[in-house]
Amino acid sequence: MESLFLLVLGNTEISTVPGISVAGATPELTKLTPVADAEYLFHEKPLTIDVIPVTPEGHPTPAIITKAARELANFPVLVVRGGTYLAPLVPHVHISDAVGRDFRKEPALPEFGDIIKRAKLFGEELNKTPIKELVIGESTPGGTTTAQAVLWALGYEARTSSASPDNPQSLKEKVIAEAFERAGIEKGQLRDNPLEALRQFGDPMMATVIGIALGFRRDIVLAGGTQMLAVSALLKALGEDLSRFMIATTKWVANDKSATFIETAKEIGIISYAADLDFSKSEFKGLRDYERGYVKEGVGAGGATWLAVKAGFSPEDVSEKVEELYRRLMEMK
Amino acid sequence: MESLFLLVLGNTEISTVPGISVAGATPELTKLTPVADAEYLFHEKPLTIDVIPVTPEGHPTPAIITKAARELANFPVLVVRGGTYLAPLVPHVHISDAVGRDFRKEPALPEFGDIIKRAKLFGEELNKTPIKELVIGESTPGGTTTAQAVLWALGYEARTSSASPDNPQSLKEKVIAEAFERAGIEKGQLRDNPLEALRQFGDPMMATVIGIALGFRRDIVLAGGTQMLAVSALLKALGEDLSRFMIATTKWVANDKSATFIETAKEIGIISYAADLDFSKSEFKGLRDYERGYVKEGVGAGGATWLAVKAGFSPEDVSEKVEELYRRLMEMK
Repeated sequence: MESLFLLVLGNTEISTVPGISVAGATPELTKLTPVADAEYLFHEKPLTIDVIPVTPEGHPTPAIITKAARELANFPVLVVRGGTYLAPLVPHVHISDAVGRDFRKEPALPEFGDIIKRAKLFGEELNKTPIKELVIGESTPGGTTTAQAVLWALGYEARTSSASPDNPQSLKEKVIAEAFERAGIEKGQLRDNPLEALRQFGDPMMATVIGIALGFRRDIVLAGGTQMLAVSALLKALGEDLSRFMIATTKWVANDKSATFIETAKEIGIISYAADLDFSKSEFKGLRDYERGYVKEGVGAGGATWLAVKAGFSPEDVSEKVEELYRRLMEMK
Repeated sequence: MESLFLLVLGNTEISTVPGISVAGATPELTKLTPVADAEYLFHEKPLTIDVIPVTPEGHPTPAIITKAARELANFPVLVVRGGTYLAPLVPHVHISDAVGRDFRKEPALPEFGDIIKRAKLFGEELNKTPIKELVIGESTPGGTTTAQAVLWALGYEARTSSASPDNPQSLKEKVIAEAFERAGIEKGQLRDNPLEALRQFGDPMMATVIGIALGFRRDIVLAGGTQMLAVSALLKALGEDLSRFMIATTKWVANDKSATFIETAKEIGIISYAADLDFSKSEFKGLRDYERGYVKEGVGAGGATWLAVKAGFSPEDVSEKVEELYRRLMEMK
């Protein structure tokens, strides 16, 4: 396989604002979701916690899709700790342990420069290997809110998606408004200063992916939903030619009417792929609910499916493998 | 480049036994040598400390050879934290932060199982990439003593080398005798129990390299001196076919009359390469003294030179680049 899948882990304090994130059973548990996602890819269940991450209503993490695609296509995976509360208990590339701060109160990521520099060094080394393509996924609870803040600061009238069918747009807009007031900036004001947008409103996942992309000069698939729009917009504002980039996400993000994935991707000028996964016939409510707008994307689920498709599997094969993995989890209970 | 250079970092408390290691200006400073070596490969000087690691008499770390070869041949490098006191301030693959214990008092590495498992996962992922060969170097102060203890436990009448021209063999033998007495074993007694030899007398570098080698199934160059004899002997005792392995070291190790590199390599049944570096004409005493038995090897210096030679450079080119790098360091003072 000439592609390498990187899973970049990030945390931001924003995920603990009640109502912002359902990427964990409680706001506090969202802190552990990135490491648990990473561990689940390599083991039958996570190591840091005893169960896979779920929404408050019990919907399983999209890591199950990534794991399914990986078991089919056998692509190589490296976990990258962009900045998390804990270190995952699996081998991982350490970039930083800086967690994004609550941007209502202070700049989100004073460490952005160090993170980009280190991640760029890592990308440069990968660039010397025969690896032709990086597929970069992420696990960053609260990340759609930081993404929307960054997109707004850069001048995009974007609405990011959510792992909840009831996208908390008014809450997102409220916390972003507070952050903009704290920082004394208006929508679009950081159009020409992407690093300041990252510092004020971003998260360590974004900084890490940007650094890797500055170091690795061949094809890069940004495997995620609207969070990868923010990464793309930052890269564009930094002067990167987006023709070597693509976003791979799921149909659930692309079809999300509460968000502007397709429109904003077009405005940024980045092509996208949406994996046509279908869980409607699953025997499990937790999976069927993906079709009702729960979860949607994360852990590079769309990009992992894309790698499986490139390897000759169909989205149906991936969906079937997800069903099998979920059954296995249910039997372990 | 179809080869990937891994630099595995390890610490053992054994390096702080006075007289055992000169891989640092003082026994206490040997704790920082692995991270400083790693940082120097990527930067003009280390970040954790302000100067490159030196012997108590001021001889520069062999990282300068690895850095020289890398600047010529541009091979990719990933740092791997097998188990060290500190995390290096460069991107690195985190395997563990377990430091080898003083084996005179207690088993050296109770964590050997977890380290091997994690490192194997990492090796398995590398095995799925198009990378055809791993060249694995190490920085492990005190590591020739743990190596000799492991070789003795496995039944080899080996003497390992030293970064000092006065190989402290009698001190090494004394601490090993104490360790064997503490553990209640005799020379050769763990011939058929390599993991127990590793647990009782090894270090985290060994466990990490073994794990990677169990996961990555293509060619592996063990880039080091007599420490890599211990790794080879462990791999052989674990049932690995050594025909895909090779040790790459320097002529200074191969010619070291106080050690048994050639004889023990032959006894184990692993082929070896010795880089023909020549610092005799250096304008700097610190480098000329390599020809008098100082330093000799480390940080994969021999393996890095081998990669440079494969890329079309001569050992003389590497020696010249070392001279240039050392001059640059002197000018920074």
